[in-house]
Amino acid sequence: MEREFDVVVIGAGVAGEVCAGRLAERGLSVAVVEDRLVGGECSFYACMPSKALLRPVELLNEARRVPGLVVGDLDTRAVLKRRDEVISHLDDSGQLPWLEERDIELVRGRGRLDGERRVRVGEDVLVGRRAVVVATGSTPLVPPIDGLADAHPWTNIEATTATSVPTRLAILGGGVVGVEMAQAWSALGSFVTLVHRGDRLIEREEPFASEQVADGLRESGVEIRLAASATRVSRNGVVRVSLDDGSELEADQVLAAFGRHPTSDDIGLETVGLEPGGFLRVDDALRVPGFDWLYAVGDVNGRALLTHMGKYQARLAADAIMGRDVAIRSDGARSPRVIFTDPQVGAVGHTLAAAQEAGLRARAVDVETSGNAGGSFVGRAAAGTSRLVVDEERRVIVGATITGSEVQEALHAATIAVVAAVPLDDLWHAVPSFPTRSELWLKLLEAYGL
Amino acid sequence: MEREFDVVVIGAGVAGEVCAGRLAERGLSVAVVEDRLVGGECSFYACMPSKALLRPVELLNEARRVPGLVVGDLDTRAVLKRRDEVISHLDDSGQLPWLEERDIELVRGRGRLDGERRVRVGEDVLVGRRAVVVATGSTPLVPPIDGLADAHPWTNIEATTATSVPTRLAILGGGVVGVEMAQAWSALGSFVTLVHRGDRLIEREEPFASEQVADGLRESGVEIRLAASATRVSRNGVVRVSLDDGSELEADQVLAAFGRHPTSDDIGLETVGLEPGGFLRVDDALRVPGFDWLYAVGDVNGRALLTHMGKYQARLAADAIMGRDVAIRSDGARSPRVIFTDPQVGAVGHTLAAAQEAGLRARAVDVETSGNAGGSFVGRAAAGTSRLVVDEERRVIVGATITGSEVQEALHAATIAVVAAVPLDDLWHAVPSFPTRSELWLKLLEAYGL
Repeated sequence: MEREFDVVVIGAGVAGEVCAGRLAERGLSVAVVEDRLVGGECSFYACMPSKALLRPVELLNEARRVPGLVVGDLDTRAVLKRRDEVISHLDDSGQLPWLEERDIELVRGRGRLDGERRVRVGEDVLVGRRAVVVATGSTPLVPPIDGLADAHPWTNIEATTATSVPTRLAILGGGVVGVEMAQAWSALGSFVTLVHRGDRLIEREEPFASEQVADGLRESGVEIRLAASATRVSRNGVVRVSLDDGSELEADQVLAAFGRHPTSDDIGLETVGLEPGGFLRVDDALRVPGFDWLYAVGDVNGRALLTHMGKYQARLAADAIMGRDVAIRSDGARSPRVIFTDPQVGAVGHTLAAAQEAGLRARAVDVETSGNAGGSFVGRAAAGTSRLVVDEERRVIVGATITGSEVQEALHAATIAVVAAVPLDDLWHAVPSFPTRSELWLKLLEAYGL
Repeated sequence: MEREFDVVVIGAGVAGEVCAGRLAERGLSVAVVEDRLVGGECSFYACMPSKALLRPVELLNEARRVPGLVVGDLDTRAVLKRRDEVISHLDDSGQLPWLEERDIELVRGRGRLDGERRVRVGEDVLVGRRAVVVATGSTPLVPPIDGLADAHPWTNIEATTATSVPTRLAILGGGVVGVEMAQAWSALGSFVTLVHRGDRLIEREEPFASEQVADGLRESGVEIRLAASATRVSRNGVVRVSLDDGSELEADQVLAAFGRHPTSDDIGLETVGLEPGGFLRVDDALRVPGFDWLYAVGDVNGRALLTHMGKYQARLAADAIMGRDVAIRSDGARSPRVIFTDPQVGAVGHTLAAAQEAGLRARAVDVETSGNAGGSFVGRAAAGTSRLVVDEERRVIVGATITGSEVQEALHAATIAVVAAVPLDDLWHAVPSFPTRSELWLKLLEAYGL
């Protein structure tokens, strides 16, 4: 059967849903195609369950810093139970009313392009008169390390949904998934060893962020092995990981946290002359160059593999499809981002090194995140640094990194300042309330010399 | 003895200290005069100790919302002990090195103007060649209610430093001090009755903030009597408060929380032809009109009785004294402000009503503060509303109010947006990170129709 819609969206993860929703709310007929869970990786196997595991850890650590609170150890069962609630026990039926209310047609099955404006789902063909939006996301990357695939490693999927706590957990990869899962599972009782091939964890962030996160993990009992790579993995009752320094480690479970691979191998790209398997590159209106009807949003386009950036792209793509002039303004490595370890890391825009590489006349100023009156109450004596990277020519902030306890909501002020290029002289008049830790802004501007 | 300085600052509260510090750091010779504690009301009897009492309450309530944490009741002794640490047991010697490092001369005693550029302290006279800055702050207002003064009521001073918990506490006044102290002492075990003459608490804020704070206090066991005023107070073992509705209430302690009176009665204003007793009005450079050498910063000038605004004014006044062109840009009722109840209230700029009164074509959009993915983890199911007030002509935000659990750091994003008048269209590109509650910005902009 062939059916026509204004727009067909392949993939009902968060980006696909947002794009479909925005189009449907403005009266377009929309179909979304999904062969797995509506809501996608983020809702069920990434951001949401990981934060359900991490919030109690963060809050417990903070509660222990505040005299007067009487706190016991984490109740692992209650944490996992809440995590199961957050992921609705891996049942996506709770997502369906949102689609129904918007008259979005949900088509269950694997969607593949089938020539111009056509999407095949099994025997059916959906035609997107105005556009087809690819929002197929990404899958965990499992590199060809000897024995790794056969050892059936955890990926983010199992690491966020596991129902019991491994006694010993080896984590391969010290990026965001690696450090967040190390934090979560060590707090829940695992003995975690984190193996990372680089010299420091979360290498895209400021060096001080890497150091503080490593220190925090070590304090939680995580063993960190830097500049080390797995060369061989085997599972035989226990998991054995051989490292390139000749050592070996033994664990009960191994998590492969090496990054992401775009879900583009088997979505029919070849039917329109595009190469399968890579990121589906798009222009600043989220359109695939050379195809006025083909858009890609979210992880699959490789611009910024972050849920909120996928949602942002989805809104822009929807607007572009509806004929508005759009241009992405927040993108790539400069996108706002939060890592929910303890300390947390919130960052937006350039790191100092990235700004200098980009050829900017950049200067960084640093203060302690809790080095102000508000820090007597929140994140007291906890590690944390706040850095602004200033473009000395334009006198605007081009980057900010804030680490510390409970800093996730502090980032948005920096995001606004960076994205809107608010002049430093205006920021000087934006007075942080006393006694909140937002006075870090005041200290930073004073350190800069205003 | 007569001594000359570039600048003499009367009052070493936070505003006076900041002004003196900024001047001294730039090489001016500065004396500050203080007859009480260096650090002032805020450090010892207001913001700092009140937040020391309130932070455990806020965090305990939040911890109870997060499954997996095991928390007991507040340990009152530990809370009071931490409060005592925060106020350094009312010893200001910890503040002195900061002054010494900057070569600021501290003169202990009551400072009084003594003609142009002259400040008398006992037998000594300090001359401010360039300027004299009045930073004498304010004192609690105790209105002439029959018997009130004789009943020796608590003011903010005793309410923030008390070492035991009154069984029954009557609070007169439902402004910021009233609601914060009701929250703190009820959590510490007092049965609190809060009497307020208005129809709603914290009347300068949005009506929903008043309602939610009242609900929160009631849930903590506070009895609230609105549209009621004390007509008579007596203390005879117990305190009896007669109300104008004919009822009477009995308590073990009574807190007078009626507002502030400028500390200007006895500071020698008459020696330069100014009227004592009122707010010392200043222009936008913090200068007293008609006197090129006389400045007033902080509570005493009546512009915005908030510590951070006093600090802001102090920086501006210092810059003005050093010859820079300055003009205050954040001021009065539109100043950023946070009330540390549970829910907290953070606000900046106009309320909707204030914007309309100011003649703006204003429109408000509201969302639930925790009505987003981040709200699954922080402030889960807790009351909270976020409102933007948009100036429809300029398409900028002229006011924001955010209520909810742990929202104090969320305000600064709004402060930047309001003060820098960031266009709505720019805010649309400032993407909040997922899953943080900062996505309230996204929901607000969507509600507005972007």
